[in-house]
Amino acid sequence: MTRLGHNSARNAQADEQLRLLIERIERLEEEKKGLSDDIKDVYSEAKATGYDAPTMRRIVRLRKMKPDDRREMEAVLETYKTALGID
Amino acid sequence: MTRLGHNSARNAQADEQLRLLIERIERLEEEKKGLSDDIKDVYSEAKATGYDAPTMRRIVRLRKMKPDDRREMEAVLETYKTALGID
Repeated sequence: MTRLGHNSARNAQADEQLRLLIERIERLEEEKKGLSDDIKDVYSEAKATGYDAPTMRRIVRLRKMKPDDRREMEAVLETYKTALGID
Repeated sequence: MTRLGHNSARNAQADEQLRLLIERIERLEEEKKGLSDDIKDVYSEAKATGYDAPTMRRIVRLRKMKPDDRREMEAVLETYKTALGID
């Protein structure tokens, strides 16, 4: 095999490896997109049942926080609201 | 059943329904987080093999676009680069 031929074979192998990595990422991104759609469907279902979706999103965010962090965040929010006359 | 008792039962059922909806969302969000971690792992693996992860991210983004849209975006980018003396 010529040097050029050898390099070409190595390049082709590297190209193939890159292609496989990219395709793995694309498949995972697609599955992620599917889950995002599923989540949207649950919010739609909740909305159809009479629940407020934006409030549910806030609840999901609040439940993700450690209780201490959440309480601190809420206290800071209250302080800022008071400072700005938002009651 | 008293009126209050009736309402309480209905409220408890609504609360339970809300809890189930929130928990479904949380499970889906967790699966999504798992996929995000898997994607990060593929990029790490690619990086360890010698590939440049930021360039791979750009390739994934470019491959997601319609070829016409991609070419137009690239043409506009070239125009702006020329206008700003970026060669």
